[in-house]
Amino acid sequence: MHGDGYSDLGFARVDVDRAERTGDPEVVYGAGKTVEQGVALVAVLREAHPDRPALVTRAAPELRAALKAAYGDEAQVDDDARTVAVGPLPTARGTVCVVSAGTSDGPVAAEAAFTARVVGAGVRRVSDVGVAGIHRLLAVRDELDTADCLVVVAGMDGALPSAVGGLTGVPLVAVPTSVGYGASLGGIAALLTMLNSCAPGVVVTNIDNGFGAGVFAARVARRAQRAQP
Amino acid sequence: MHGDGYSDLGFARVDVDRAERTGDPEVVYGAGKTVEQGVALVAVLREAHPDRPALVTRAAPELRAALKAAYGDEAQVDDDARTVAVGPLPTARGTVCVVSAGTSDGPVAAEAAFTARVVGAGVRRVSDVGVAGIHRLLAVRDELDTADCLVVVAGMDGALPSAVGGLTGVPLVAVPTSVGYGASLGGIAALLTMLNSCAPGVVVTNIDNGFGAGVFAARVARRAQRAQP
Amino acid sequence: MHGDGYSDLGFARVDVDRAERTGDPEVVYGAGKTVEQGVALVAVLREAHPDRPALVTRAAPELRAALKAAYGDEAQVDDDARTVAVGPLPTARGTVCVVSAGTSDGPVAAEAAFTARVVGAGVRRVSDVGVAGIHRLLAVRDELDTADCLVVVAGMDGALPSAVGGLTGVPLVAVPTSVGYGASLGGIAALLTMLNSCAPGVVVTNIDNGFGAGVFAARVARRAQRAQP
Amino acid sequence: MHGDGYSDLGFARVDVDRAERTGDPEVVYGAGKTVEQGVALVAVLREAHPDRPALVTRAAPELRAALKAAYGDEAQVDDDARTVAVGPLPTARGTVCVVSAGTSDGPVAAEAAFTARVVGAGVRRVSDVGVAGIHRLLAVRDELDTADCLVVVAGMDGALPSAVGGLTGVPLVAVPTSVGYGASLGGIAALLTMLNSCAPGVVVTNIDNGFGAGVFAARVARRAQRAQP
Amino acid sequence: MHGDGYSDLGFARVDVDRAERTGDPEVVYGAGKTVEQGVALVAVLREAHPDRPALVTRAAPELRAALKAAYGDEAQVDDDARTVAVGPLPTARGTVCVVSAGTSDGPVAAEAAFTARVVGAGVRRVSDVGVAGIHRLLAVRDELDTADCLVVVAGMDGALPSAVGGLTGVPLVAVPTSVGYGASLGGIAALLTMLNSCAPGVVVTNIDNGFGAGVFAARVARRAQRAQP
Amino acid sequence: MHGDGYSDLGFARVDVDRAERTGDPEVVYGAGKTVEQGVALVAVLREAHPDRPALVTRAAPELRAALKAAYGDEAQVDDDARTVAVGPLPTARGTVCVVSAGTSDGPVAAEAAFTARVVGAGVRRVSDVGVAGIHRLLAVRDELDTADCLVVVAGMDGALPSAVGGLTGVPLVAVPTSVGYGASLGGIAALLTMLNSCAPGVVVTNIDNGFGAGVFAARVARRAQRAQP
Amino acid sequence: MHGDGYSDLGFARVDVDRAERTGDPEVVYGAGKTVEQGVALVAVLREAHPDRPALVTRAAPELRAALKAAYGDEAQVDDDARTVAVGPLPTARGTVCVVSAGTSDGPVAAEAAFTARVVGAGVRRVSDVGVAGIHRLLAVRDELDTADCLVVVAGMDGALPSAVGGLTGVPLVAVPTSVGYGASLGGIAALLTMLNSCAPGVVVTNIDNGFGAGVFAARVARRAQRAQP
Amino acid sequence: MHGDGYSDLGFARVDVDRAERTGDPEVVYGAGKTVEQGVALVAVLREAHPDRPALVTRAAPELRAALKAAYGDEAQVDDDARTVAVGPLPTARGTVCVVSAGTSDGPVAAEAAFTARVVGAGVRRVSDVGVAGIHRLLAVRDELDTADCLVVVAGMDGALPSAVGGLTGVPLVAVPTSVGYGASLGGIAALLTMLNSCAPGVVVTNIDNGFGAGVFAARVARRAQRAQP
Repeated sequence: MHGDGYSDLGFARVDVDRAERTGDPEVVYGAGKTVEQGVALVAVLREAHPDRPALVTRAAPELRAALKAAYGDEAQVDDDARTVAVGPLPTARGTVCVVSAGTSDGPVAAEAAFTARVVGAGVRRVSDVGVAGIHRLLAVRDELDTADCLVVVAGMDGALPSAVGGLTGVPLVAVPTSVGYGASLGGIAALLTMLNSCAPGVVVTNIDNGFGAGVFAARVARRAQRAQP
Repeated sequence: MHGDGYSDLGFARVDVDRAERTGDPEVVYGAGKTVEQGVALVAVLREAHPDRPALVTRAAPELRAALKAAYGDEAQVDDDARTVAVGPLPTARGTVCVVSAGTSDGPVAAEAAFTARVVGAGVRRVSDVGVAGIHRLLAVRDELDTADCLVVVAGMDGALPSAVGGLTGVPLVAVPTSVGYGASLGGIAALLTMLNSCAPGVVVTNIDNGFGAGVFAARVARRAQRAQP
Repeated sequence: MHGDGYSDLGFARVDVDRAERTGDPEVVYGAGKTVEQGVALVAVLREAHPDRPALVTRAAPELRAALKAAYGDEAQVDDDARTVAVGPLPTARGTVCVVSAGTSDGPVAAEAAFTARVVGAGVRRVSDVGVAGIHRLLAVRDELDTADCLVVVAGMDGALPSAVGGLTGVPLVAVPTSVGYGASLGGIAALLTMLNSCAPGVVVTNIDNGFGAGVFAARVARRAQRAQP
Repeated sequence: MHGDGYSDLGFARVDVDRAERTGDPEVVYGAGKTVEQGVALVAVLREAHPDRPALVTRAAPELRAALKAAYGDEAQVDDDARTVAVGPLPTARGTVCVVSAGTSDGPVAAEAAFTARVVGAGVRRVSDVGVAGIHRLLAVRDELDTADCLVVVAGMDGALPSAVGGLTGVPLVAVPTSVGYGASLGGIAALLTMLNSCAPGVVVTNIDNGFGAGVFAARVARRAQRAQP
Repeated sequence: MHGDGYSDLGFARVDVDRAERTGDPEVVYGAGKTVEQGVALVAVLREAHPDRPALVTRAAPELRAALKAAYGDEAQVDDDARTVAVGPLPTARGTVCVVSAGTSDGPVAAEAAFTARVVGAGVRRVSDVGVAGIHRLLAVRDELDTADCLVVVAGMDGALPSAVGGLTGVPLVAVPTSVGYGASLGGIAALLTMLNSCAPGVVVTNIDNGFGAGVFAARVARRAQRAQP
Repeated sequence: MHGDGYSDLGFARVDVDRAERTGDPEVVYGAGKTVEQGVALVAVLREAHPDRPALVTRAAPELRAALKAAYGDEAQVDDDARTVAVGPLPTARGTVCVVSAGTSDGPVAAEAAFTARVVGAGVRRVSDVGVAGIHRLLAVRDELDTADCLVVVAGMDGALPSAVGGLTGVPLVAVPTSVGYGASLGGIAALLTMLNSCAPGVVVTNIDNGFGAGVFAARVARRAQRAQP
Repeated sequence: MHGDGYSDLGFARVDVDRAERTGDPEVVYGAGKTVEQGVALVAVLREAHPDRPALVTRAAPELRAALKAAYGDEAQVDDDARTVAVGPLPTARGTVCVVSAGTSDGPVAAEAAFTARVVGAGVRRVSDVGVAGIHRLLAVRDELDTADCLVVVAGMDGALPSAVGGLTGVPLVAVPTSVGYGASLGGIAALLTMLNSCAPGVVVTNIDNGFGAGVFAARVARRAQRAQP
Repeated sequence: MHGDGYSDLGFARVDVDRAERTGDPEVVYGAGKTVEQGVALVAVLREAHPDRPALVTRAAPELRAALKAAYGDEAQVDDDARTVAVGPLPTARGTVCVVSAGTSDGPVAAEAAFTARVVGAGVRRVSDVGVAGIHRLLAVRDELDTADCLVVVAGMDGALPSAVGGLTGVPLVAVPTSVGYGASLGGIAALLTMLNSCAPGVVVTNIDNGFGAGVFAARVARRAQRAQP
C-alpha cells in the first residue's frame, strides 16, 4: 500500500515518501482537522517512518492533549507554538536565530523555533527587540552574526527585518504577523513592508507562517553545516 | 468683490481670506491647471495680500518659467520640489528638520522643506539615512533632537519613521513616497507601514504629500517658538 | 540589569529608558496580553521610574480591575477609553482640544484625551459636531482657535477634519474610526478621506488610534508652552 | 428593420426604442469608438428619432469635430465636457444645480450640466466651493434650496456632499472625481467618502460619471415640475 | 437651550433644527448605542418636535422593545427592518416602489420602505424578482412605470438595477446588500456592479443602506407630487 | 397561480418553470433562510414538479433534519456537503470527476459532487492530490482523462488546476476554497491563481461554490452523452 | 530532440506534445514576445505538427504581418481579435455561440470566437445585446438554446451572463472585459459580478481572456458532438 | 571622510562599509537616478573598495552605456537583466539554480542569476518549465536537487514554486513577476499564490525582484560551501 509512495486513508492520501524527497519530517496541518483525523494521520506517518518525527502544527488544545496521551514522552508539545512533534528529533546541525519584535509576536516566533528544531537545526531566540528601541537590537548584534539563518518576526509596521538586514549579511527570512489593528489589515501592512524592505536579500513568508519560516531556515542552517567534520 | 471673503474669477472662487483664518499663505495646487489659470490665480492672490507669499505646488516647468518671467526676483523657484513662491517670505520661527531615506525620495523632501520655509519656519535637511544603515541615522541624532518638528520621508518599506521615532520625542510627521515597485503599490505599502508604526506618536500624510507635511510642521515649529522674545 | 537600558523579563525586554529619550511615560499596549503580563510590565515600569506614570491602553476590563486593585488611588481608570494610568501625572502644559463627530466615536476620542493628559497636556473635549450640521461646528470655533493642537475624530465619511481644517490654522491631527458599515471597510473609508483632505496641513493616525493622536498632540502642546514663564 | 425595436448595423445593434421606454434621448458612449462608428451611430439615431437629440459623451476631439462638420448648427459641442448633442433640445423643465469643489473637477461638472440640459432640465452651476472654505458654501445656500435636484461633484476627500447634504433637503446626487493623487486611488477615496456620507439621503454615481448624474438629476427635476401648469 | 439649534445631552449634541433645514424627521442611528442612549435621544427629539416622527434605525431588539414600552401606539415597530418610528407619520405624497431580488435582501428592502413612508411618501413593494428569472420582472413592469421613484435592492451579482433601469425611465436608486459569500466581499461586488451599471441614470447607496435609499426616494417622490392639488 | 411561471408565497416568488427553461432541478439557497422558509420552499417545488428533485444547499443542520423528518427516504442528505435533495434523482448521464487538493477542501468537493449527481451526471471523486506531491496526481491520470468534465477544488495556493490542466484536455472547472490563512485572503489568493492559470481553458467559479461547479459540470457531462444510444 | 516531448530553442522549451495530451493546437501567447521569437516559435510548432494549426494570440500588428508574409494563405489573421492561426483548421464539431454586450467588447468576443473555431468548434456570434435592453436579448433566445456552449462577454456592470443564464441551461462561460472606467477597476467589477452570478452554473475566465473561453467552449462543444455519426 | 562609514556626496550618503558588515558588494538601485548620479555613485564605491564589484540594477540603457564607456572590460553588462557589474567578481562558491516558467519571465530570472554571480555564487539556469507541462519539470529534477539554493521565477498563476517545492528539499526562493494581465493585478496574483504555497518552506520576494532573490540565494549558497576545502 505504501509502494506507490502514498497511503490512502479514505479521507486523506498521506504522502509517506516526502521525507525521502526533501529530507524533512512529515507534517500535518492541524487547522480544520478533527482530533480523530489528526491522530490517524500521525499514526500512519509514525508507522511509515519510525525513525523520523511527525510534526503537527496549528493543533487545537484537544488534539495536542490527544497526541500527548497517545504517545507520552515520545510527544513534545509546545503550547505557545500550538505545535506537537511525535518521534525522535534529528541531530541539530547549524543554528537558526529567531528574532521577534513584541510579546504579541511570541506564538509565531515559537512556531518558527520549534519547527526549525524538529527539521534539524539548533535554535536560539531573541525576543522583544522592536525597531522603536534600536539600542536593544544593537546589543544583540553578535547573536545575529553568528547564526546560520535568521528568522525575524514582527507585526504592526513590520520594520524590524529592514533594521536587522542592515546590520548583518546572514540569510534572513522575515515573518509578518497579524498583530495590530485598523490599517494593519490583519498583517497585510507588515507583509508589504517586508516585501519592500530596503535591506537587500530579505525574503518573506505568509502572515503568521512561523512553520514555513522554520522549515526554510533549518534547511539553510543544516546545509551550511553539512560539510563540516 | 473681496468683501465676501473670496474673489470670483469665473473658473475659480479664490479664497482670499484664508490667511486671516489660518495664518498661512495662500496656495495654488498646480497639477491639472493651465499656465494661464496658474498665473491668473497668483495675480489675484498677490493683489489681495501683497504682504504674504503665494505658493504654487506641483507646478509644471512651463508654469514655473511663466511665474519666474512675470515676477523676477520676487519669485523663488525650487525645481527639485516643483514649487514656486511669489512674494516676501515670513520671518523664520522655530526649526523643521526634514529627514529622507533615499535619493529617490528627494523631490518630496524638497517640497516639504520649501513649503515649511514659506509657511514661516526655519528648515534643516538630513538626506539618505535609510533604516538599512542605522549607523548613519545614529550619527545625526543631535540634529533630530534639536528640531521643533520632524518630517521623515521614505518610500519602499517606509520603515524610517519608526526608527527615528524610537530615537527622539520631537513631534514627527511621516511622509510615504511612491518610490518602489511591485508590492509597494505606488506608495501604499509605505503608507501602511507608517500608519502602523510601533513608535508612539507618528502621524502621517498622503503619499508624496511633502506640501501637507511642510504646512503642518511649520505650524508646529512656529507655535513652539511663539512665546520666545 | 537596567544599566543596559532595558530590563529582561523573559517574555519581554522592557525599554525603561524610553522616557529619557522621548520625555514621555512608558506605555503598555494591553491588547493580546494576559492580566499577569500586564501587571508584571507595569510593576517593572513603576520600579524603574517611580516619578513617571505608566500608561496601559486597550486594557481588558479584567486588567483594568487588576491594576485598580493593585494600585488603588495611584491608578486612574477611564473605562470609556479602556485605559489606565498608574503613578503621578505630569503638570499640564498647553491645551489639546479633542473634537469628535458622533457619539459612536466617543471611545476613541476618550482614549486620545486621556492619553494627552497623561503625556503632559491640558485637555478640552468638543463632542458630536459632525459635518452634516455645520452650524454646530461654527458655534465652537473659538474653542478650536485657542487650542495648541487639535485632535479630530470621525468615522463613516471622515469629513470632519476637512471642515475643521478650513476654519483654523491650529495643528490638526485627524483620527479615523471604525464606526460605519459596508463600504466604510472598517474605517478605511474615513482614513482615505482624511489622507486626501483638501484642507492643508491635516495629518492622520491609524484607524481608532486615539492613543497615538494623544501622544502626538500632547508633544506639540507641551512644546508650544515650553518657553513661557 | 426598426420594427423589432433595434437596428442592426453589423458592429452594433442600436436600441432605437429606448426613448419610448425611458423618455430620454439616445446616448452614444464615445470612449473606445472610432470616428466612423460614432458618426454612423448618430446617423441611425437621428433617422429613427428626428424629434429627439442624440447625445455623444466622452467624445474624442476628432469625433466632436466630425459631428460638428456633419451637422453644423444642429450639433452643440461642449469641449470642456467632451460632449456633443445633435438635434433639437427638449423644453427645460425644473432646475438642476451642479455644485463643484475645485477647478479640476470642472470637466465632470460640465458633463453633468450639459447632460441634464439635453435630457430636459434647466441647469445652474456653482463652482469652486470646497468644504475647506465653508463660508463660500454658506453664501450660495439659496441657490441650493431652490433647485429641484442637486449634483455635487468633488475629488480628493470627497467631503463636499456631506456638507451640502447637511444644509438642505433637496435630493442630492454625489459624483466623485478622479482628481487627487496617492491615496486618492484614482477617485476611490472620494467614492467611499460619499457612500459613507453622514448626511442622510446622499446617493452616488461612478467616479467621473457626470453623464449618469446628469441623466438622473434631470429625470428628478422634470418629474418635480410635471404637474405644474 | 434649543435656541442655538441643538440640544446638548452631554453624550450627544442633538440637532433639533434639522427638520426645518431639510423637511425630514430626525433620525437616530441605533447601532452602537445603548438602550438608555437611544431612549434619551428619542425623548429629546419628541419634545423638540411633537408634530414630527423620530426614526430609529438599526435598533437592537431591546431598544425596539423599550421604545414600544415607552410610547405604546405612538411607536411603530418594523422588526424585519429593525426600525422604529415614534410620533405621527406625515401625509403620504407620491409613490416609492421598492423592488428586491431575493428573500435574503428582505430586511434591507424593508428598511427602505419603512423609511420612505416615515419621510413622507407612499410605498409599494415588489419582492423576489431576480435577474435570473427575467419574466418575473417583466410581469411587474406597470408597477415600475407608475412609481415616482424606484429603490432596487440586490445582493450577490447586483445585476437587478441594470435590468430594471433598461425597462423604465423612473428615477432609480440601487441598494447593494451584503448577501453573498466569497468574492461578494461583503457586498462590494454588488456595489461595484451597480456603480458600473450600463443602464443610464442609476445612482447607488452604501451597502445595506436601505435607510439612505428610503430618505432619498421619499424626497424625490414628495417633490414629484408637490404641485398637485 | 402557477400559470404565470411563478408561485407567490408572500416572502418569495418561486420560479417553478426554471426547470423547463434550463433542464435542471429547482434549487433553494439555504443560507440565511429559516427552517420554516426552507421547508415551505421545498413543498412548493415538490408540488409543482413531482418528477424532479428539489436541491437545498448550505442547509443548516436544523433544516437538514427538518427535511429528513418531513420526507424520509425521499430526502437524501449529505452532511459533509451541507446539502439535501428531495425527490427522485434523474438518470446519470456522463461522468463528472471531482478532484480535490487537501482534506480541508472536502466539504466544497462534496457539494460539487452531490450537486452534479442531482443535476443528472454520474460522479467520481479523487481526493488529496495536491500539487506539492505531483506523483500522486500522475497516478490518477487515467481517471482524469476518462471523465466528461473535471471539477478541481483547491485552497491555499490554488495551484492544482494548473497542474491538472496541463495533463489533460477534458473541460476543467476550478473551484477556489477559503482554506488558508493570512495572505490567502479568505480564498481570494486561490481565486486569482485559478483565473491566471497558465493552462489554457481553465474556467473558475466563486470561492467555495461547489454547487455552481456541480451544476455546470453536470450540464457539460449530460450534453457529452446526449447523442449516445 | 523532440523525443523528450519538448524542443529546446534556448529562449524557450516548446511543448510539442501538448496536442497529444489535450487534443488542442499549440498556442503562442504573443504579448511581450519579439517578432523574431514569435516567428521562430511558430516554425517549431509547424514542423513538429504539420497537421495541426499553431495559434498566436495577442499578436502585435508587426507579428501578424510577419506571419502573413511568411505563410501566405496558410495563415489566417483576425485583426479585430489580434490573433493568427497558421496551418489547416480542424473540422468544426458542435456550435459555440459568442454573445457580447457592447461594441467595445468586440475584440474580446472576436478572440473567443476565432479561438473556438481553431480549437475545433463551429461558431456563431450575437453582438450588442446588453442587459439594459432586455428585449434585444429575448429576441435571440433560440440562438442561445441551440448552441452547445455559450461564451458571454461583457464589461462595465458585467450583468449580461446573469440574464442569459436565467434564460437557458446551455453551459455558459462568462468573460469579463476591461471596458469601463472609475469603479470598474479595469474589469474587476465585471469579474466580481460574474463570479457572484445569481444564475446557477455560470463559470468565469480572467478579464479579457477571450482565448481561454474559446478553448474551453470548443472543448465542450466538440465533446457534445463526439458521439454523433 | 570615509572614517564615519559613509561618504557624503551631497545628493547621497554612500554607505561604503556595508560590505564589511554583510560581505556583499555595494549596490546602486538605478531606477529614478540620472546617468550622472549613477556614474558618480559607482565611482565612489570603486574608490572605497577597489577589490569588490559595484552592482547597478534597473539601469537604463544610457546608464549601462555610460558605465561600459567609463570602465571598459572592467564593466560586465547584462542587457536582458538591465544590470551592470563594475570590478572584479568574487570566486564562485556553491551553486544557485534559477528556474523560470515562461519566456516573458526571462528578464527577472536574468537579474537573479547575474546578481547571484556578482554576490559570489556559481549559477545555473533552467528556463521555460511551466507547471502546465509537468513532464518538462520532471526532466530537470537532478539539476534541482544538486543546487545549494533554488530561485523559482513565475508570473501569471505563480504555481511553479509549489510544484518545484514538492519535488525537492533544497532551499527555494520564489519570485513573482508582473507577467500577466487582468486579474494578475501586476503580479499580485502570483505573489499571493507563492505566499500561500502548499509546499513547505517556500519564501518569497517582491514582484520582479530578481535582485533580492539573487542576493539571498548567493548568501545561502556561499554559506553551504564555506567549510569545504
